[in-house]
Amino acid sequence: MSLIVKKFGGSSVANAQRVFNVANIIIEDFKKGHDVITVVSAQGDTTDDLIDKALEINPDGASKREMDVLLSAGEQISISLLAMAIEKLGYPVISLLGWQAGFNTDSHHGFSRIKTLNTERLKNEIGKHKIVIVAGFQGINRYDDITTLGRGGSDTSAVAIAAAMKADLCQIYTDVDGVYSADPRKVDTAKKWDEITYDEMLELAALGAQVLNNRSVEMAKKYNVELEVLSSLERKPGTIVKENIKMEKTLIRGVAKDTNVTRISVIGLEDTPGVAFKLFNKLAQAKVNVDTILQSVGRDGTKDITFTVPSDQCKTAKEALESATNILTYKEISSNEKIAKVSIVGAGMESNPGVAAKMFEALYDAGININMISTSEIKISVLIDVDYADKAVKAVHDAFLG
Amino acid sequence: MSLIVKKFGGSSVANAQRVFNVANIIIEDFKKGHDVITVVSAQGDTTDDLIDKALEINPDGASKREMDVLLSAGEQISISLLAMAIEKLGYPVISLLGWQAGFNTDSHHGFSRIKTLNTERLKNEIGKHKIVIVAGFQGINRYDDITTLGRGGSDTSAVAIAAAMKADLCQIYTDVDGVYSADPRKVDTAKKWDEITYDEMLELAALGAQVLNNRSVEMAKKYNVELEVLSSLERKPGTIVKENIKMEKTLIRGVAKDTNVTRISVIGLEDTPGVAFKLFNKLAQAKVNVDTILQSVGRDGTKDITFTVPSDQCKTAKEALESATNILTYKEISSNEKIAKVSIVGAGMESNPGVAAKMFEALYDAGININMISTSEIKISVLIDVDYADKAVKAVHDAFLG
Repeated sequence: MSLIVKKFGGSSVANAQRVFNVANIIIEDFKKGHDVITVVSAQGDTTDDLIDKALEINPDGASKREMDVLLSAGEQISISLLAMAIEKLGYPVISLLGWQAGFNTDSHHGFSRIKTLNTERLKNEIGKHKIVIVAGFQGINRYDDITTLGRGGSDTSAVAIAAAMKADLCQIYTDVDGVYSADPRKVDTAKKWDEITYDEMLELAALGAQVLNNRSVEMAKKYNVELEVLSSLERKPGTIVKENIKMEKTLIRGVAKDTNVTRISVIGLEDTPGVAFKLFNKLAQAKVNVDTILQSVGRDGTKDITFTVPSDQCKTAKEALESATNILTYKEISSNEKIAKVSIVGAGMESNPGVAAKMFEALYDAGININMISTSEIKISVLIDVDYADKAVKAVHDAFLG
Repeated sequence: MSLIVKKFGGSSVANAQRVFNVANIIIEDFKKGHDVITVVSAQGDTTDDLIDKALEINPDGASKREMDVLLSAGEQISISLLAMAIEKLGYPVISLLGWQAGFNTDSHHGFSRIKTLNTERLKNEIGKHKIVIVAGFQGINRYDDITTLGRGGSDTSAVAIAAAMKADLCQIYTDVDGVYSADPRKVDTAKKWDEITYDEMLELAALGAQVLNNRSVEMAKKYNVELEVLSSLERKPGTIVKENIKMEKTLIRGVAKDTNVTRISVIGLEDTPGVAFKLFNKLAQAKVNVDTILQSVGRDGTKDITFTVPSDQCKTAKEALESATNILTYKEISSNEKIAKVSIVGAGMESNPGVAAKMFEALYDAGININMISTSEIKISVLIDVDYADKAVKAVHDAFLG
């Protein structure tokens, strides 16, 4: 007998039929003798509907405290409906709101972090052999005010419960049946993995393979919670995410692309100490997320710094730099939105120096020019022309996994 | 400077425009220097929409505990939207759920009663000079589970806060502008009262003049909370409900009719001791609300008992009696749904024995036959043919107040 924590997103409980589908998945495990705690998000578009109501009242944006009161009603509705479905099917069940389940957070309304999870009530209900349904995404702060963990926060709620309750497994149900080596809709040789490591999952998520919320994977890694990514529509095993996986002969775990990338070049910067610091400090103050950075020596005692940002932050980044001419001397700023980042991820590449060369060769054979390169221990990313992004993914995938 | 508690029903906050109307009413008093705590119900049809969702999951009716989780989300939405509107208008405000506002109830989910109201948080927020918005209709029990007070419970929430906080006034906003001597849509001489007593309000409410929830009036009387019934659409004084009102020369306060009445006669009952007890005990077990009762001596050593019940309980009542033939001997049961109860209410009639005669005379002059009569200290009711109900109300109203 195990303790299993399950998490279902909003689309999994979007209507009565889907609520019963989720109820049946839970009951299947409960009937096998497992204890089951299930975290659910708000139904389908409920969150968006509630946001619309708030915008109608205040188009400039309401206070985050009141937004949290409003939005947390969404999970309140979904947990009670799921509990009713399980009751209807004849099994013992109880729904708990975030505060009832013991989620204590800090006071950052809208994107709060869990400080402690008081498991007394959860243990109590599990002790009565009840199926427990918990509202994801929410908690209370020290003032007893409702907080939310931000979008995707239900994954974090589930992992936190799994960690605190020392669950045997935390299953995250999605609309895909696992983690693939590439987008299976675009690469027909894409392979589904039985197991991947936390770090691989983190790198893949950061690259736009939005299967799991990143914060939840970090938490799972920290507390060594075994995750499974699986489909709520099909009954088959998904992909297990854990620290030590059985070795496979593969070097890389996935090929991902990110087209929400803009490259910004600052040309002809004065070549004095502290220039890079001043530049990126200015961007940090403007809350711009800088990704890949390349610095090259320019001509006439100047240097060029090139970096990438999410495309929607390009304007903010340029404005920040243009307002910094009192501390930064440079010739010009140029930007290019027509680029994509293609990356390979794999814990296996750490001990295999030939991986980068193999990736570049594949791109060369496909006639694709590389703009910039960046690497981490388990990831290699290249920036290329956006028009070649899909072709590049396929070429690289075929070279390693074809 | 006073402390004013206000209560707005669901139709008063049904859309963004109405939410702002309520916000402005609150702000008007706040700007005068008053402290304001406002209780709101769920928006317009939210409660019905949520009930529909539950019925879709379980047409047989979900558990009351989970229904309370579901339904209480309705006020959670409305309090946050109202708070957002007040924020938008530039005034300090905070919304509180039932449990945050300190409502501790018993565990009768769906129709719980307030046990204690912990005013610490309310006092704290008022102390910070904030407008406080409280979710009506809800609280938590000793297990930290959400409970609801049942429909109309928001009135009770408001009165409970007014009592516990020793408020100077509790204003209940409705879609009528006060308490009238008769339905003003039907009786053109109907008079709006400046003041009436709690007992008069209770009798009028019991007679179908559904301006205020009865439980809330009882609580207001018990804790001596001054109520005002007024319109959320017009800015003018309503009707004050309190214990001692200034004397007016009127004998009666209102004429009301109730057409949801069925008369049931049990004919030829054995005339032995305990028959009435057995009969009404059986009805009580079947949860039938018996109103007017008339017992008459029949023929041949038998007696007849006639009583009225709400029309929707007629079937239950007859079935209960038909299943009781082992303990009750009678000849037949007959029922008549085509009747109405017309009543006059007024604290002034206690010391005026001529009131009943005057009422009967008015009905006689209008050619209306009286079926049954019942009286209390401040109320006289007659049962008549339903077709004459409106005519009877007008005739009686004209006799006393025309």
